[in-house]
Amino acid sequence: MCTDLSKERGKKADQIKGGLRMTELTVREVVDALAEWGGASIGEADRLLAGEPATAVRGIAVAFTATIGAMQEAADSGASLLIVHEGAFYSHENDPAAWLACAAFYEEKRRRIARSGLAIYRCHDTLHRCHLDLITEGLIRELGWQRCVARHLPAASLIELSEPMTGEQVVKHVKQLLGLDRVRVAGNLKVDCLRIGLLVGYRGGGKLAIPLFDRYGADLVLYGEGPEWETPEYVRDLAEMGGRGAIVALGHLESEQPGMKLLTERLQALFPGVPVSFCPVAPALRSL
Amino acid sequence: MCTDLSKERGKKADQIKGGLRMTELTVREVVDALAEWGGASIGEADRLLAGEPATAVRGIAVAFTATIGAMQEAADSGASLLIVHEGAFYSHENDPAAWLACAAFYEEKRRRIARSGLAIYRCHDTLHRCHLDLITEGLIRELGWQRCVARHLPAASLIELSEPMTGEQVVKHVKQLLGLDRVRVAGNLKVDCLRIGLLVGYRGGGKLAIPLFDRYGADLVLYGEGPEWETPEYVRDLAEMGGRGAIVALGHLESEQPGMKLLTERLQALFPGVPVSFCPVAPALRSL
Repeated sequence: MCTDLSKERGKKADQIKGGLRMTELTVREVVDALAEWGGASIGEADRLLAGEPATAVRGIAVAFTATIGAMQEAADSGASLLIVHEGAFYSHENDPAAWLACAAFYEEKRRRIARSGLAIYRCHDTLHRCHLDLITEGLIRELGWQRCVARHLPAASLIELSEPMTGEQVVKHVKQLLGLDRVRVAGNLKVDCLRIGLLVGYRGGGKLAIPLFDRYGADLVLYGEGPEWETPEYVRDLAEMGGRGAIVALGHLESEQPGMKLLTERLQALFPGVPVSFCPVAPALRSL
Repeated sequence: MCTDLSKERGKKADQIKGGLRMTELTVREVVDALAEWGGASIGEADRLLAGEPATAVRGIAVAFTATIGAMQEAADSGASLLIVHEGAFYSHENDPAAWLACAAFYEEKRRRIARSGLAIYRCHDTLHRCHLDLITEGLIRELGWQRCVARHLPAASLIELSEPMTGEQVVKHVKQLLGLDRVRVAGNLKVDCLRIGLLVGYRGGGKLAIPLFDRYGADLVLYGEGPEWETPEYVRDLAEMGGRGAIVALGHLESEQPGMKLLTERLQALFPGVPVSFCPVAPALRSL
């Protein structure tokens, strides 16, 4: 848990377990708890995308993003609040820009959201601003590397393996534990790796990833997504000069969804009287 | 050819063929010809990354980007000028930022560039600002769709197939003609496509790609690279609502390299007395 807010929320949970009606928990209370968690004000990214703060929370569903399928699954589970990491309108800025707002499809998605009856809360910055980034923590846990953390930097974590693995072995491990068919790689995956840098989401750009090799001695960096002409070209050059260094680009969703799974468990602990379920979302992009 | 500059350059070529020493052609003249081509001033992206304007051009090599391997191949071919589309230091801004400038690797790459003896010119904006974007034109030609162009928009082109193809058939066609093992796709690839939108490079974001579906009636959009949470999520939602719409993400290099191949041929026509060769570069990212 990022802060000791759990104690206060625990009281609420005890009240709920003690027989108070579950409807006493409102969307506003969940949102406030999440906002306080990361210590960040509800800002640009984090906001209620649909629904009203005063709505009673009968159940909570958590998903990476508010796809049509995830909304359906959330509604079917009896949830009245869906918590997502990314926006619902294909843009980091939650307000759809003019090019989308005039699209017929935008209105159709808005109708589907309204019809689902769900309040939808986007929980993004808060999770990344926890003392230990909750999204990164989720990925570390999913990969079974909780005991291998050497250092947390503001936007990255460094893993120190107890036994060396080749880059190819790391790929196999990652694909198996995250349940992925394919990942994209660059650089030299034949050499042994001991130090691995982790960067979730769109943190795979050169500015964050290259110093992990150069300054922090990473042999391999796992990231979600980043510009193709930056870090991949850097490790290509390293390899062509006979050096070490490789990357594994997991995909944006693939790198962040484990964090939303972890958030689900944290919410279950925080609001034990309310059903909280996780709706896994398949990656939109598939390899063919 | 984008402008009638070919006539003037033709005179130069005739002089060269007529017995003038090839060394009369300088880096500056090639750079000026390229800059005038697109009608854009040599600005932010387009610039001489290495070498001097007064250097004699014995031969020209063209590559997508200045990898260690491409520089070697260019030098081996006897070229004194390497023309690339992307920068040499893993950033759209050509000047490496502080985080890279202090890296040991940066100095090593600079040494390798100096040792190659090549002048390196980055030719980016000029090619995209041609009346018909030369990079897009190269992709259209490589895909054999020159006679299927329905419309050129400022940053995209629309292809109208004479016979419908399913999205899966389009993928097969694209992989075969571009020589790709894998592409990434999203949306519904089972339905027939007639109208295809093309977006090269990092133009796959929602702002450029979504209107191709919504406003211009594309059934499928082929793009190089774009944020994963934008267009892929849009076509996922379309598909989950039973609609049409799919994307094929080729990769940044994969979408733009055919344009650099076309540039090679244009330079061969413009400077017939100078050897101009194309150095294909494999994608840095591979699927595993």
